[in-house]
Amino acid sequence: MQYAYSTRMSTLKPTAIRELMKYFIRTNCILFASGNPSAESFPLEDIRRISADILETQAKEVLQYGISEGYEPLRELLKNRMKEKYRCGTDADEIIITSGSQQVIDLTCRALLNEGDTIVCDNPSYVGALNTFRSYRANIVGVDMDPDGINTEKLEKTFRAEKNIKLLYLVPTFQNPTGISISAGKRKDVYMLCKKYGVIILEDNPYGDLRYRGEDILPIKSLDTDGIVVYCGSFSKILSAGIRVGYALAPRDLAQKIVIGKQVSDLHTNTFFQVLAERYMTLCDMDQHIKKICNLYRRKSSLMVSTMHRELTGCSFQEPEGGFFVWCTLPPEIPMAEYCSRAVKNGVAVVPGSAFTVHPQDPCNSFRLNYSTPTDEQIVKGVEILGKTLRSFQ
Amino acid sequence: MQYAYSTRMSTLKPTAIRELMKYFIRTNCILFASGNPSAESFPLEDIRRISADILETQAKEVLQYGISEGYEPLRELLKNRMKEKYRCGTDADEIIITSGSQQVIDLTCRALLNEGDTIVCDNPSYVGALNTFRSYRANIVGVDMDPDGINTEKLEKTFRAEKNIKLLYLVPTFQNPTGISISAGKRKDVYMLCKKYGVIILEDNPYGDLRYRGEDILPIKSLDTDGIVVYCGSFSKILSAGIRVGYALAPRDLAQKIVIGKQVSDLHTNTFFQVLAERYMTLCDMDQHIKKICNLYRRKSSLMVSTMHRELTGCSFQEPEGGFFVWCTLPPEIPMAEYCSRAVKNGVAVVPGSAFTVHPQDPCNSFRLNYSTPTDEQIVKGVEILGKTLRSFQ
Repeated sequence: MQYAYSTRMSTLKPTAIRELMKYFIRTNCILFASGNPSAESFPLEDIRRISADILETQAKEVLQYGISEGYEPLRELLKNRMKEKYRCGTDADEIIITSGSQQVIDLTCRALLNEGDTIVCDNPSYVGALNTFRSYRANIVGVDMDPDGINTEKLEKTFRAEKNIKLLYLVPTFQNPTGISISAGKRKDVYMLCKKYGVIILEDNPYGDLRYRGEDILPIKSLDTDGIVVYCGSFSKILSAGIRVGYALAPRDLAQKIVIGKQVSDLHTNTFFQVLAERYMTLCDMDQHIKKICNLYRRKSSLMVSTMHRELTGCSFQEPEGGFFVWCTLPPEIPMAEYCSRAVKNGVAVVPGSAFTVHPQDPCNSFRLNYSTPTDEQIVKGVEILGKTLRSFQ
Repeated sequence: MQYAYSTRMSTLKPTAIRELMKYFIRTNCILFASGNPSAESFPLEDIRRISADILETQAKEVLQYGISEGYEPLRELLKNRMKEKYRCGTDADEIIITSGSQQVIDLTCRALLNEGDTIVCDNPSYVGALNTFRSYRANIVGVDMDPDGINTEKLEKTFRAEKNIKLLYLVPTFQNPTGISISAGKRKDVYMLCKKYGVIILEDNPYGDLRYRGEDILPIKSLDTDGIVVYCGSFSKILSAGIRVGYALAPRDLAQKIVIGKQVSDLHTNTFFQVLAERYMTLCDMDQHIKKICNLYRRKSSLMVSTMHRELTGCSFQEPEGGFFVWCTLPPEIPMAEYCSRAVKNGVAVVPGSAFTVHPQDPCNSFRLNYSTPTDEQIVKGVEILGKTLRSFQ
């Protein structure tokens, strides 16, 4: 049978990374292409103990249907934490629990986007969000980035030129794929621009807790006195990615639309791991745990970058201040796609930067490296191979 | 700020039941309004033992990101079970794991529906599905039901009259809210009609395993030699509802669109409970467990129906052969909405049948009773109150 697919799905493809990963795993490469947290970052002992305890004391509750908004005590805890630690959220905001922060992106689009509406984002950007936007047949407009984040002149030019702009999507802290953070001053500029042009900001912050160098910068949501920011949070990078627990901090009216969207898409997020997250935050020292993870990633990122300095002469890259990635730009004379495929043949998988550009044809001479999952030995050996690959072009 | 919501979400409301439930819980009613499985149906000891074992032996795997299709060994097991036990699925079909069967409904709509496309369903129908269809701005056309399921003459008339029919949505076994099952002969007729008119069947089967009277009837999917049936399965009613693990059994091409939709909506279903479901099916006797649950519900449904026979003179209802519900039709002279609100005042909550009709104005003089969650004492006392409420109209 020939299936008559919806327009939105007829052209949408699975992410390139995902398809590449399957290939990479088959070829037994050193993987710098992943976006996973290190398995060493999961607090296994705590999770074991708390899980057993939940199934002893609250089994019937966690195995039953829950409400779409999420587990009340977890919502309360997150609301307090966001307020106290990050100065985010007012009495006009609500926390809604979702199946990972990916679902906040999806449900925000569901609540706001009609076909053809415009989403502005920095370019390159997180491919999982770009694909969600594509699935809503949004008009996606990318804006170039400076070393301190999205270029605000170009952003305002875009706000003036485009019609029906519903959302500005940003990963302001340790952006995926570039690792760039928007400076504190620029956050204010971006917020004021969005206020001026009536654009809602979708602030995705999966890596925010993972700062291991430099000064903390408050989320854009901390400036939100006007109810124009939907903040996406997640436990994926600090507790566990597989549990699929994330959350939105959003103005109440918008939060209620997110809840209705949640209800029609999957009823509610699995109860057990909501309770586990709540217990973990209550019984354990999550900030101490985050410090430990940061130490792990600081070491790994230093090792990768110092090896890159030795091996990748002529390339440009920054030492990351947090997050999972190094963004490496090749000398202009080296063709990026060919470089990446030669690297795979030599035994190292990186992600071609073109996977993250708003339009596949956007120029890009960079690739993304991940240091959270490879071992120290793999980091050194992998970067050495990348160096050898680079020299093979000379 | 005034938010400019998408057209799809600007008018969508949370389900009436959900809002009613909040009210009922506040008023301390006897709850016949729920759709939850009995907490006694969860195999707690097995879940405790298996959970501890998974966190001992597979912790790093289950706490990490997984793939969008779902955990491979679970997909394989379900494929075999569907084939061996229900004769469903060919080599051209795939199992995709989802966050409950609600998500199969959502992702099938996402894959197939453009705004204004038609979905046909029996009327009344499962309100959670109706709301998902509404969220895609589908043209929903209800078809009346006979005691052996959807009226096929009216169904064909609808297929002839309506344009752009993409889906026929059915809960063929122990339908929610009526409890009606489509007979084996009629399933074939429905299938042939859909084949003739090029309509895809979305077969939702959450209660199929819970038959405690009468003869098993194979799912419509068992007839699917043409690749026109998407089957929705779930662990919610046999293992646990809170774990949010369901699945689609769908023709490969369509299944791949469901996977892409899954990826953009929440990446993947939580890994831990996929592994738990797989281990449970491998290590425990799930069919034996299902028998135990059926014994529980057989007893509860008999108690409710025999009390109804004693108390609700003049009402019409059937003894259910499975599932969770009794559908009770009032004598024509008694106004249903008024009856239901008088019942709440007297201390019993049922769901007005109008919550399940395709259009709120569709005539309905029935209400839905649930027997899976109240205790035996509550069942007897609650039905007695419903009888007293009935007599208050005389």
